[in-house]
Amino acid sequence: MARVVALAGQVGGAKLADGLARLRGAELAVIVNTGDDFEHLGLHFAPDLDTVLYVLGGVANPEAPWEPQGESYAVYDMVRRLGGPERLRFGDRALAAPLLRTAWKSADRRLTQITADLCRRFGIAAQVLPMSDDAVRTHVLTDDGAVPFFEYFADLGCEPPVRGFQYAGAEFARVTPEIADALDSPDLEAVVICPANPYHTIAPILEVPGMRELLRRRGAPVVAVSPIVGGKALTGSAGKMMMELRREASARRVALEYLRLIDGFVLDSVDADQAEAVRACGIEALATQTVMRTVDDRVALARAVLDFAAEIRARRLLEAG
Amino acid sequence: MARVVALAGQVGGAKLADGLARLRGAELAVIVNTGDDFEHLGLHFAPDLDTVLYVLGGVANPEAPWEPQGESYAVYDMVRRLGGPERLRFGDRALAAPLLRTAWKSADRRLTQITADLCRRFGIAAQVLPMSDDAVRTHVLTDDGAVPFFEYFADLGCEPPVRGFQYAGAEFARVTPEIADALDSPDLEAVVICPANPYHTIAPILEVPGMRELLRRRGAPVVAVSPIVGGKALTGSAGKMMMELRREASARRVALEYLRLIDGFVLDSVDADQAEAVRACGIEALATQTVMRTVDDRVALARAVLDFAAEIRARRLLEAG
Repeated sequence: MARVVALAGQVGGAKLADGLARLRGAELAVIVNTGDDFEHLGLHFAPDLDTVLYVLGGVANPEAPWEPQGESYAVYDMVRRLGGPERLRFGDRALAAPLLRTAWKSADRRLTQITADLCRRFGIAAQVLPMSDDAVRTHVLTDDGAVPFFEYFADLGCEPPVRGFQYAGAEFARVTPEIADALDSPDLEAVVICPANPYHTIAPILEVPGMRELLRRRGAPVVAVSPIVGGKALTGSAGKMMMELRREASARRVALEYLRLIDGFVLDSVDADQAEAVRACGIEALATQTVMRTVDDRVALARAVLDFAAEIRARRLLEAG
Repeated sequence: MARVVALAGQVGGAKLADGLARLRGAELAVIVNTGDDFEHLGLHFAPDLDTVLYVLGGVANPEAPWEPQGESYAVYDMVRRLGGPERLRFGDRALAAPLLRTAWKSADRRLTQITADLCRRFGIAAQVLPMSDDAVRTHVLTDDGAVPFFEYFADLGCEPPVRGFQYAGAEFARVTPEIADALDSPDLEAVVICPANPYHTIAPILEVPGMRELLRRRGAPVVAVSPIVGGKALTGSAGKMMMELRREASARRVALEYLRLIDGFVLDSVDADQAEAVRACGIEALATQTVMRTVDDRVALARAVLDFAAEIRARRLLEAG
């Protein structure tokens, strides 16, 4: 049974999930965003799922963890030569999971089952769980209308100012039995929201009806880690998006995005001066080293987050006693 | 307008088509077998079409013309690692055409249009025409029942004895406007049946309703080249299949397969002693060097075939005059 459930996506999310997996192994369940999934050349690409698989499976390119190490681009080069789409320079190895996912889905297998099979093949003991077996597609609202996230990213280079987000299909998406089981575990010690874009990586997970309630069901502390360090996202465009949404691009502002969901918030040591502002909102705060350059950094952050959750639990018990 | 129409598939067929393309350029139309097409991992593989495209496009691996030169297998290796099917070790570059074909077909484009686009991208001036836009699937009849050709080839290693063939879907397949146009050309000087398996490469083309009549419509000589040299197929399993079908594995026996369709038959010099038997069936015969080791060999054979057709035409005119 799961002792830790993480919400993840993107590079930072995958890295912290890896740190947690190294500490908790099979007792970790990672719920992964599928709102950024897209269809390209008829194949189901799931960038967040695959990044988590590559990183936890130990095959990720350290410089570009969204693809396997030693990647080549022979298929893409030939596709372009033959008049196929130029956008999305996909790698050869990174094509295998979308190919199999698409083929297995047409054989009526659930995305969760398919992902479990891929996990097993990558030798991953933790459970990697798509946020739903139903399709949710995040759209970015721009001045020119709503654009699927993949187009915003691949065709528009994340340039148009963001006015908001829509999570198409979210209202009909169902929590999977595997996620319900993981979050109903009596041994649950923490729910960890990994450092990732709050709007298009974490929010879609939270938009699945019933997910928020399930996250709090067992009463385990919910702890989020800031994706914003020193006013900027380490990777991705969370900082840019926050400013366009007329929010301060800061760690403490990220904490507000998770108000009424989280018990604790972890921000980077460089943002330690914002801890008080977080606490003023009734959220416990921990300032520590959150930038994960090495595998040791991932484990250290995972340990700090789990220790922080344990403290919150202990303090609650004291207060209740 | 087409001056020469070739029927092709397999390696030998692609090589002679290439020789013809070097002589006739845009005035050549190649009708290609699609009966051996198959779906694998949800993708539409068309081995005969792609072999013709690679060979005419000048990108084929000389040792294995069914794939592009300098091929790698990164996708396949990862697919296997992730639990995908082991059969069909497809190359990275060779995956591009099936990917695009599948994507473009779901966008409601005809196989003929898709193939024309690929041709253009490969810089091929000749027209490469799938035998139909409708699916025909060749099945091999074995003692254990009918097996799709791809399974017979990939899973059974062409081992079970052949008892016959079925061309599923052939009765509903339609000749394309492009094929009808090519065969209706007033300048047509020859129809060439390239050296290829008569049963699963040439027969499916002939099974498309109306095709046989169209091939003879303009009265241009129809000339076939034997795929059997010295009692064996150079590549493929035509010889083995002939024996299992209780036919002599010989060039002259191939000529009989095309009785009432062809005017002339080209056999290899090593089989020159069979020319008389062919002539006895009312088919003109030419013995020449048919093994194509070099590009010059392709052009030489193409020239010999076209000269042979010209002789047949001239003789007919004389006889008619």
